[in-house]
Amino acid sequence: MTNFAAGAAQPTSPVRLADRLNNVETSAIRELFKLLGKPGIISFAGGFPDAALFDVEGIREAALAALAAHPGAALQYGATEGFDPLREQLAAFMAAKGATGVAPTDLIVTTGSQQALDLIGKTLISPGDKVIVEGPTFLATIQCFKLYGAELITVPVDGQGADVDALERLIAEHRPKLVYLIPTFGNPSGATMSRERRRRVLELAVQTRTLIVEDDPYGDLYFDAAPPQSLLALSAEVPGSRECLVHCGSLSKVLSPGLRIGWLVAPPLLLAKATMCKQFSDAHTSTFAQATAAQYLAAGRMPATLARVRAIYAQRAAAMVQALRDTLGAAITFAPPQGGLFVWARLTGANGRCADGGVLAQRAIEQGVAFVPGAPFFARDPDPATLRLSFATVDEDRIREGVRRLGVALAAAQ
Amino acid sequence: MTNFAAGAAQPTSPVRLADRLNNVETSAIRELFKLLGKPGIISFAGGFPDAALFDVEGIREAALAALAAHPGAALQYGATEGFDPLREQLAAFMAAKGATGVAPTDLIVTTGSQQALDLIGKTLISPGDKVIVEGPTFLATIQCFKLYGAELITVPVDGQGADVDALERLIAEHRPKLVYLIPTFGNPSGATMSRERRRRVLELAVQTRTLIVEDDPYGDLYFDAAPPQSLLALSAEVPGSRECLVHCGSLSKVLSPGLRIGWLVAPPLLLAKATMCKQFSDAHTSTFAQATAAQYLAAGRMPATLARVRAIYAQRAAAMVQALRDTLGAAITFAPPQGGLFVWARLTGANGRCADGGVLAQRAIEQGVAFVPGAPFFARDPDPATLRLSFATVDEDRIREGVRRLGVALAAAQ
Repeated sequence: MTNFAAGAAQPTSPVRLADRLNNVETSAIRELFKLLGKPGIISFAGGFPDAALFDVEGIREAALAALAAHPGAALQYGATEGFDPLREQLAAFMAAKGATGVAPTDLIVTTGSQQALDLIGKTLISPGDKVIVEGPTFLATIQCFKLYGAELITVPVDGQGADVDALERLIAEHRPKLVYLIPTFGNPSGATMSRERRRRVLELAVQTRTLIVEDDPYGDLYFDAAPPQSLLALSAEVPGSRECLVHCGSLSKVLSPGLRIGWLVAPPLLLAKATMCKQFSDAHTSTFAQATAAQYLAAGRMPATLARVRAIYAQRAAAMVQALRDTLGAAITFAPPQGGLFVWARLTGANGRCADGGVLAQRAIEQGVAFVPGAPFFARDPDPATLRLSFATVDEDRIREGVRRLGVALAAAQ
Repeated sequence: MTNFAAGAAQPTSPVRLADRLNNVETSAIRELFKLLGKPGIISFAGGFPDAALFDVEGIREAALAALAAHPGAALQYGATEGFDPLREQLAAFMAAKGATGVAPTDLIVTTGSQQALDLIGKTLISPGDKVIVEGPTFLATIQCFKLYGAELITVPVDGQGADVDALERLIAEHRPKLVYLIPTFGNPSGATMSRERRRRVLELAVQTRTLIVEDDPYGDLYFDAAPPQSLLALSAEVPGSRECLVHCGSLSKVLSPGLRIGWLVAPPLLLAKATMCKQFSDAHTSTFAQATAAQYLAAGRMPATLARVRAIYAQRAAAMVQALRDTLGAAITFAPPQGGLFVWARLTGANGRCADGGVLAQRAIEQGVAFVPGAPFFARDPDPATLRLSFATVDEDRIREGVRRLGVALAAAQ
């Protein structure tokens, strides 16, 4: 029988991908995450809140109340802008934290704050546009903006958050479409921008007519004192800054990621265009999830829930900080977190120890502990000595055991 | 006091929009929808299922079961591909309709099928790429693809669905990135493609290496006999066609739009890239909604729910068909729908009556009845004589009264 296929041209694939996919690569972190299924592993790698702390009973009651109150509305198509009772609750939630003067119509509900980032990209970024982000910053922001063709510039971060002098120079040099910041308990840096720097960022925005995007999923997760007010709250003190400011909020870290409830506050023109883009992205966020979240907030359970998770995360953070100091000593340096989910650390290379986060991550998996190397969080000029360690989902004993294994891995990584 | 602002340049807006927004305009339909709040109006304008028919009790039980079974999983972050128990149920749901051989891993869950369209656009369409759609087709598909820069070509539709001879010529001429079809109870056309044409579409896809996107939100809503099998089911009979086929499914029209549960079946490369794009679009679809839908499907309630809504929509469709014939007679022509939510009609202009859907829509609002003019559903060469009338959310008496008002409006539109 003749093999007609031999020598024949390979048939053309019917799938021809868009050019924008050339701008993103498969993340090294995803490869690492595939190893996390190994039995017995202690994972500091996630960016998740602890599911064991979810207020399941409160969410159950809220879901039942949502179906009882307006079953049609909770299960029907809804406005792209969001379910009005939730928009009202979210405005009140922000007002309670000092961001007064945000009307329910000044925000739209998004499918997690990830969608707020996507809508910002879709609405604002043309291929080749420059965007300033912190170095390091949230990985999914980097990839999200790159898919829209952004050219990313990084502003360095220290213990007080983004370096505003550097930011001023970079804005003047690059005239970016926007500046993206996580000012409070940043991911992955854990850093919190001082109040003074926050004011300077807002003043700089007004002076240079630059749009600032504040991503604030962690601000409620402080351990002792509340952090400085959000840029959104502070904007009341800096005339003209509100029209230069976008704010992304989320219930994912404080209530439940599975509801996928985030929100976007933006100047009217941008909010209208983001709403149009959302209409063609997913029509609207789940009304069932929105109505559930609205009932939960209206029931007044959030303050107690926040108090509970803050106390537990504070204990876990303290346990990790102590264990890292006791076990790794001079081999590692970090600023103890004041809130959020992460310790951001740097290998010092002291005494000839390993100073490469990627190498250590491999050794650590072999020892039964996982974390995320820091390099992929840099849009440019990665620092290979960095690591991100989450303490959020591991109890204190397991944190100490995990750090002990990390010490063994470090010894093995000579 | 000197007015320093006088003569000063207007400050630059900090919001500078992306070029892609130039490709879409605010829809005329949205302006019309603003008028629907008028008291007493009978609306044939929506594209919604009837909220009064939702199985609220079944969804409540499913939500409780989801929270009882795996509260952590239902409220935590989930895989971008979707919640595995739901992927299994959706594969079984499709298999029961003849689309066998679709493994749970051959699909990803999307935030409504609107997101499936968005991911198709994001993954495949570069600015200037040609895409063939039916004329008329779903408005949000037109806008969604245009945002990614698609140049849309329209293939005409008759009572048997898209004209496949014309499609063959258009594929040869334009070499499109993809062809988007709603083969069953199309929106807005109501048309259903014959089995013979479906086979020819699949053969054409294989011969020309063209990607076909089948959007199938209405296929379960048939009135008497089931429609011809979906392209996805038929692909088993046409060798090589499965790798040229994308299928979008949705629970919105058959269970609840508010859950925002859709799904995307696609060849492996495309599915992987769509998953990556989804990761940066909304991370994943609400796990709470997914777990609820999975429990609902597993409980076996869908067949009874479908039987109930089919019977009611069939009665409403029959009432509208009869009323249109009795009241408007020769002034209107249409094919009675065999399923779905819509009557797609054309004003004939007989006896000098109004033959402009947009003009009639204005007069109709004045008479207390609303529908959507058909012209905006055409990506090119709009037919101004067309109208879309939904019978889904109005009971039979109100349908007759609404059509009576339409008759008055037509008389007034001379």
